[in-house]
Amino acid sequence: MTDVIARAVRVARGQEPADLLIRGARVVDVLTQQIRPADVAIVGDRIVAVAPGLADGREMIEAAGRYVAPGFIDAHVHIESSMVAPGRFADAVLPHGTTTVVSDPHEIANVLGVDGIRWMLAASEGLDLSVLMMAPACVPASPLETAGARLESSDLMALAAHPRVLGLAEMMNYPGVLAGDAVELAKLMSFSGRPIDGHAPGVLGADLQAYLAAGVVSDHECLTAAEAREKVAGGMMVFLREATNARNLLDVLPAVTPENAGRFAFCTDDRVPGELLDDGSIDALVRIAIGAGLDPLLALTLATRNPAEHYGLRDRGAIAPGRRADLVLFEDLADVRPSLVIAGGRVVARDGERVGGGEAAPGGLAPTMDVAWRDSLQLRRDGDRVRAIGLIEDQLITTSEVVALKSAPADVAAPEPGADLLRLSVIERHHHTGNVGQGFVTGFGLRAGALASSVAHDSHNIVVAAADDGDALIAARAAAELGGGLVVAAGGEVRATVALPLAGLLADRPPREVADDLARAEAVAAELGCRLGAPFMALSFLALPVIPSLKLTDHGLVDVDAFALTDVFV
Amino acid sequence: MTDVIARAVRVARGQEPADLLIRGARVVDVLTQQIRPADVAIVGDRIVAVAPGLADGREMIEAAGRYVAPGFIDAHVHIESSMVAPGRFADAVLPHGTTTVVSDPHEIANVLGVDGIRWMLAASEGLDLSVLMMAPACVPASPLETAGARLESSDLMALAAHPRVLGLAEMMNYPGVLAGDAVELAKLMSFSGRPIDGHAPGVLGADLQAYLAAGVVSDHECLTAAEAREKVAGGMMVFLREATNARNLLDVLPAVTPENAGRFAFCTDDRVPGELLDDGSIDALVRIAIGAGLDPLLALTLATRNPAEHYGLRDRGAIAPGRRADLVLFEDLADVRPSLVIAGGRVVARDGERVGGGEAAPGGLAPTMDVAWRDSLQLRRDGDRVRAIGLIEDQLITTSEVVALKSAPADVAAPEPGADLLRLSVIERHHHTGNVGQGFVTGFGLRAGALASSVAHDSHNIVVAAADDGDALIAARAAAELGGGLVVAAGGEVRATVALPLAGLLADRPPREVADDLARAEAVAAELGCRLGAPFMALSFLALPVIPSLKLTDHGLVDVDAFALTDVFV
Repeated sequence: MTDVIARAVRVARGQEPADLLIRGARVVDVLTQQIRPADVAIVGDRIVAVAPGLADGREMIEAAGRYVAPGFIDAHVHIESSMVAPGRFADAVLPHGTTTVVSDPHEIANVLGVDGIRWMLAASEGLDLSVLMMAPACVPASPLETAGARLESSDLMALAAHPRVLGLAEMMNYPGVLAGDAVELAKLMSFSGRPIDGHAPGVLGADLQAYLAAGVVSDHECLTAAEAREKVAGGMMVFLREATNARNLLDVLPAVTPENAGRFAFCTDDRVPGELLDDGSIDALVRIAIGAGLDPLLALTLATRNPAEHYGLRDRGAIAPGRRADLVLFEDLADVRPSLVIAGGRVVARDGERVGGGEAAPGGLAPTMDVAWRDSLQLRRDGDRVRAIGLIEDQLITTSEVVALKSAPADVAAPEPGADLLRLSVIERHHHTGNVGQGFVTGFGLRAGALASSVAHDSHNIVVAAADDGDALIAARAAAELGGGLVVAAGGEVRATVALPLAGLLADRPPREVADDLARAEAVAAELGCRLGAPFMALSFLALPVIPSLKLTDHGLVDVDAFALTDVFV
Repeated sequence: MTDVIARAVRVARGQEPADLLIRGARVVDVLTQQIRPADVAIVGDRIVAVAPGLADGREMIEAAGRYVAPGFIDAHVHIESSMVAPGRFADAVLPHGTTTVVSDPHEIANVLGVDGIRWMLAASEGLDLSVLMMAPACVPASPLETAGARLESSDLMALAAHPRVLGLAEMMNYPGVLAGDAVELAKLMSFSGRPIDGHAPGVLGADLQAYLAAGVVSDHECLTAAEAREKVAGGMMVFLREATNARNLLDVLPAVTPENAGRFAFCTDDRVPGELLDDGSIDALVRIAIGAGLDPLLALTLATRNPAEHYGLRDRGAIAPGRRADLVLFEDLADVRPSLVIAGGRVVARDGERVGGGEAAPGGLAPTMDVAWRDSLQLRRDGDRVRAIGLIEDQLITTSEVVALKSAPADVAAPEPGADLLRLSVIERHHHTGNVGQGFVTGFGLRAGALASSVAHDSHNIVVAAADDGDALIAARAAAELGGGLVVAAGGEVRATVALPLAGLLADRPPREVADDLARAEAVAAELGCRLGAPFMALSFLALPVIPSLKLTDHGLVDVDAFALTDVFV
């Protein structure tokens, strides 16, 4: 094994050719904030020299004046939101220059517990993409829902011993932490000295101090620059997020200054496959930030060095001898579009196309659809005014609206698509409990039919938004029959599907195929009147009772601010 | 144990008084480079809130507008150079605001091996000062000397498991690394993913790239700003050093810019006890840097956050909830002199005086003086010109001079104090080998007598610089009879001593007593004509064959550039 280092030393001293030599690059030095002309010599998976005029390599890449930056690092992502298995996810993000992700397998953990996480670890072993993980902190996310599994502190400690598990993932139960809940505090204490990610939208003042005092060190839920400034002043790393359904980057970016820039990183959190493929991964955030006026060198530092330092990834985040050869070549600092991506010393993408990849995921996941079906999803009418979830496009937070039903009194509180008031149901799908949570949602614009999804943060029961109660049941049952997935039904029949048979969350197919399926389903939804750009992403967050203000679980309607169930009829 | 966190949360939320509240401070926020008015609430050893207008504490400190900065961190220090045991060293540095040291027990390791390191760990356990350690990489420092012990890779790995051992200490054998020496590369590989400190004075260009490629990540041996710039551009952390015998700070400081400042930290490396007490520890470097024009906020960042981040010390380096309550209060940004020092939530020094301390060191160290004495230290004359070590005050490097002897040919090559040409001897003291290395040195100015020391980097044999061969033997024997120490002899008798009976390196006495003894010995040396400010420190580095250009070990004269023995007579 010292042979590799010995060879690295000889190559660096010019005594042997490198395995790979990148010649004539403009090296983006995120450590000193400079760009300088240099060649980059690589041996195995490591950089061994960065200097002008290096000797030959067995393989040569002519950079021809292109910039070369360290591979991008996604500071916080749920791979499950890509709807594809980790190897397929890698195929989507590597062409965009993301060579390392710090992922939280929170979704599959809610469905399959430790078995699900172990499967994600197995499915991400040995990929060209470095998949690092955080141990999911909150499974289930709250006591107000039925998840597929529960993770105890002992489970988390067992996971913590895995070499690719860095720390504790987002501690979403900030009310529990602030209330001194011993279970949550024990989890934090177990990860003392390791990174503990936070999740505290709008938590400021004394509550923020308390949340930090408990051991949390980062946050990716800032909604405003002022919130980010306070969190950074409190000692937090703030991850600037641009997710499919939570676009906060431009709102928060003004908080970044040259003096505090070291305290920020980028994350995608949740991105659907089509967006990953076409808009991008961390490269998209780099472009947005630079477009908004952030110094390109700082933007690239937020994408590389900062998350590496935050997570203690000493072997990456900069272009320097001894670090991993994770490199991104591109032409234009004002419009960073990777034309060549190297991970672990190998070319893994060229001109936006993956080189290699396409590996199938391992087997071994149990089926996860176990629903005690009812005959109907109709809701008994119990008044004339309902508390409805007010969906805000591209945000995870919702409003809580009180809406007067327009229809004449009846036995059933039917959807009122004319008033953009859809019926929302959450059907428990893990333990055959027969639980169905019932409510209303505004903001979809759907005029007919129903959308169903087995992706429904965080417990991933089946969530259905419907302009028609009959189509609701058809869509939900079709989703279950796929082993999980997304379904559009209308007029009594299934109109579009995205099969996600792995845990009801993922497909083991090329991301483009899944993106195309999703695009077709979205197009059908649009034909039915839906006006959201990503209706299934929006749908999937309506069951998440840890983000304000009103959500629906299989237990019923949740007033998140009060962290308690509430009634549909006011 | 979650009780402590629960209480931290309650205090942060204002529901309970803090254990200690610092009120009305100007908080130095090294994360955002701002100074802002705030109170600091402490529970146990942790900061739990930093905000204006906090509620009461059980104990209150009125900052009254003083600045409060994070406790200083010494990025690289050999505690042994203080000549006192770790607890006594803490008494010296805590009043100067240094609350954490990353120490390399390299000296005691060269005398007593793993037993010596284990003793240092025991002697630094539970101190108010956080004593972290690096595993000594090069024991012995070279094959060209006889050390008391040898550390193998297996010893290092055993040490690496200790919770206070962070990584591998300075890899001084850079020639070995560059030559691909499998033993040295194996040590580097064993610490892959952990901090590996470097030691590469003047190593630049392809050799620097190779040294970095092998896994080294820091250096504290830069002599010039240009050298530091190249090392930082190569990805190194550069520790700016101001040691008693190596004052490089002002030469290297111009390399620090706001853009690259994150890549620098401060270290003292080797400071004698009097300098620690009177000039200071890291605070002295902060004052020098600010005096030379470095932005005070950046200077304080180099003293706190940067070394914390470099070593992965997540729990310190900034004033923020959840971090250790290691705090330094001072009045003036232009002249940082700690007036109150808090470590782990307790006041440990006030107005330059230690509060508490004075703990005795544990026993258990074996005696270490085992010399096979010769009748005389005279050197047989074998020519008219000698290769003499040219001492450079305040530098570890020496020149190699060829000097024509002035005296008439004779059997013995005697010292020629009139020409400032002293005789230098190194007497093996660990294994009764009888080895004596013989040579000459210029630059002391000693006109009569001899200086002997059992502190002699790195093997810590007895080194003697003499204007008289008879006094040389008297001084050396006296040092051995003390169990180790420093001696001045002249006119056939012992004139001054500093007893260092612990491994021949340390005393378990208050640092002031040892400093006074040393000052007396230095005064006697000065009376004898010595013109060096710290003659024993200078003497102690003349046997270190890993720093250019000419050194003397018990094996003989070493041409460091050639890494080989050479002849005294040219």
